[in-house]
Amino acid sequence: MVGGSVPVFDEIILSTALMNQVISFHDVSGILVCQAGCVLEELNHYVQERGFIMPLDLGAKGSCHIGGNVATNAGGLRFLRYGSLRGTVLGLEVVLADGTVLDCLTSLRKDNTGYDLKQLFIGSEGTLGVITAVSISCPPRPKAVNVAFLGCPGFAEVLQAFSTCKGTLGEILSAFEFMDAECMQLVGQHLHLARPVRESPFYILVETSGSSAEHDAEKLDGFLEQALGSGLVTDGTVGTDQSKAQSLWALRERITEALSHDGYVFKYDVSLPVERFYDLVSDLRARLGPRAKHVVGYGHLGDGNLHLNVTAEAFSTALLGALEPYVYTWTAAQRGSVSAEHGLGLRKKDVLGYSKPPTAVQLMWQLKALLDPRGLLNPYKTLPAHA
Amino acid sequence: MVGGSVPVFDEIILSTALMNQVISFHDVSGILVCQAGCVLEELNHYVQERGFIMPLDLGAKGSCHIGGNVATNAGGLRFLRYGSLRGTVLGLEVVLADGTVLDCLTSLRKDNTGYDLKQLFIGSEGTLGVITAVSISCPPRPKAVNVAFLGCPGFAEVLQAFSTCKGTLGEILSAFEFMDAECMQLVGQHLHLARPVRESPFYILVETSGSSAEHDAEKLDGFLEQALGSGLVTDGTVGTDQSKAQSLWALRERITEALSHDGYVFKYDVSLPVERFYDLVSDLRARLGPRAKHVVGYGHLGDGNLHLNVTAEAFSTALLGALEPYVYTWTAAQRGSVSAEHGLGLRKKDVLGYSKPPTAVQLMWQLKALLDPRGLLNPYKTLPAHA
Repeated sequence: MVGGSVPVFDEIILSTALMNQVISFHDVSGILVCQAGCVLEELNHYVQERGFIMPLDLGAKGSCHIGGNVATNAGGLRFLRYGSLRGTVLGLEVVLADGTVLDCLTSLRKDNTGYDLKQLFIGSEGTLGVITAVSISCPPRPKAVNVAFLGCPGFAEVLQAFSTCKGTLGEILSAFEFMDAECMQLVGQHLHLARPVRESPFYILVETSGSSAEHDAEKLDGFLEQALGSGLVTDGTVGTDQSKAQSLWALRERITEALSHDGYVFKYDVSLPVERFYDLVSDLRARLGPRAKHVVGYGHLGDGNLHLNVTAEAFSTALLGALEPYVYTWTAAQRGSVSAEHGLGLRKKDVLGYSKPPTAVQLMWQLKALLDPRGLLNPYKTLPAHA
Repeated sequence: MVGGSVPVFDEIILSTALMNQVISFHDVSGILVCQAGCVLEELNHYVQERGFIMPLDLGAKGSCHIGGNVATNAGGLRFLRYGSLRGTVLGLEVVLADGTVLDCLTSLRKDNTGYDLKQLFIGSEGTLGVITAVSISCPPRPKAVNVAFLGCPGFAEVLQAFSTCKGTLGEILSAFEFMDAECMQLVGQHLHLARPVRESPFYILVETSGSSAEHDAEKLDGFLEQALGSGLVTDGTVGTDQSKAQSLWALRERITEALSHDGYVFKYDVSLPVERFYDLVSDLRARLGPRAKHVVGYGHLGDGNLHLNVTAEAFSTALLGALEPYVYTWTAAQRGSVSAEHGLGLRKKDVLGYSKPPTAVQLMWQLKALLDPRGLLNPYKTLPAHA
């Protein structure tokens, strides 16, 4: 997304694809230890057969490696329920810049012996060390999963539906995703996916995961009744079987693919306070006018994470100039994050300063100098040029 | 517990007690921003009135400060459900050794802009910087809380009850604590708390927190039926009203207090694989024989965290010699942690090597040198003397 794993100049690429073995799995605690090159989806199958699921899920699951997920602190679709990798990753084995193997590959839920070194390598995009093995805590596989796809008349109603949802679904809420009408139009136009509900300005996808199908259905019905009754939601459909649930998820998961068929795509991934969440999309639409083909907003509303994408016939520096630094200053003014889950890589390293103060950037450079004094690890990425 | 916050030689004590203001609270997201000197219990009251709870709870809640909780990466009673502070703490403001204020006090659930510097200060016991403000994500206040206190005939049954519990209670399980018969005897003898169930070798406390009293009671009944029917549990009592629930919790929470009335207490706090969890207690009982008054085991079984305490008439170097390094080598042989949640402080800094390899300890020293080159911050603590 940000070119963090793409060679640009003279880099040597290191593949962990052959390091694809599960090292151990504990079927009471659900703790998985595996090599860095294991594919996320394969790990999910492996632990599902044993009554658990991986604590993260994302569109790229079929090809992404767990080591890369950890190195980029991947967020994704289960973040709302199972939280950050900073909590679920229990241990790492890392090769440092000088070749030393740092063994922090413990399988303990709690360990307060000294500094938690593994945190240095989560989300630092390979610039401080190479992750070679991961220990991760997997939650129990839910017995019942329901997906509801709903149409909302406005963004205020989307937010109110989220609050209502948290109240009535409580601990079984496992995803609250949203997409706007333009997203739906694009998945229809480019991927021929049918809209499952009446046309609306906004759509939300609510997923529940729980241990009792009956209780979960009752809670979900309660939410839908309340949301429909109060006009927060104008139309909806529920997928209780796996194939319908998957087809509803596809509408949300395949937006990226639909966008790529629409032309050149400018991509932004920001965290914002939810009440200002969609204003950035509306502002940009007004600002760009006919210069953009589409300005769309979608993402993990439950986590305050907006994916803002702008399509155009082709790349243009004029359009880029209208977008940047506008999007970044807008986000910084809300004390938001200019990269919620995609990281910085090559393309966004110079915008770090919009979300972090100079003192923080300086300390990051000091950590880089400490762990990789010769600048060998994923060079040209993540950190901006020295001031 | 380990003297991490106690002056020993020539330290200057810095109190944050007057920095006790809530800075902001967001009543949709549940994100609290406050100064470091806020007392945990007061924060919990504050957010409870607004429909949320703090993601952590521990015996010392009435006096401990949130800044100290974060600096020591406190675990406690809600860890099983809401996870580590490494996931729930969203931002920190920290004063560095040279007086610089590091502002990482964001209130975003997701932020992948550069290295996550706040992690350096979580759990480093004030040795890398002084935490002055905290941003933390609070979960919604559960609508129903139930507590069951149960007697188990053996430790194998305790473990099986835990597995059964995870299956039937699923997402509403919020605590799984255990204590042995000697703990119960001591809270009876020293605090005159009555045993609420028939005498058993082991007792477990199961708490559920959920959004529907009816559903939760059904799930809990299902678990109890199964556990009693299969002999995992031989007697039990359930507290659905707050006062009974609190009296059941008191049996578990006041063990430390009961122990302090029993004589000198040697305290250990280890993480172990659950299947070997209680063997350490039995081994020590056999090893110490009549030299110890009591050898007791209790703790957060759901997190693999055992509190192992040994009481004696008075401190004795002979008894200490029988305990250490025995407890540490035993734990290290299981790849456990010699300090699960209490940290290292002064008393345990020299045992760090039982849980972390030399490479890791060396990197910890390098971080200390980078952030506190003159060794001003909480000296003599956390890290062992240089090799």
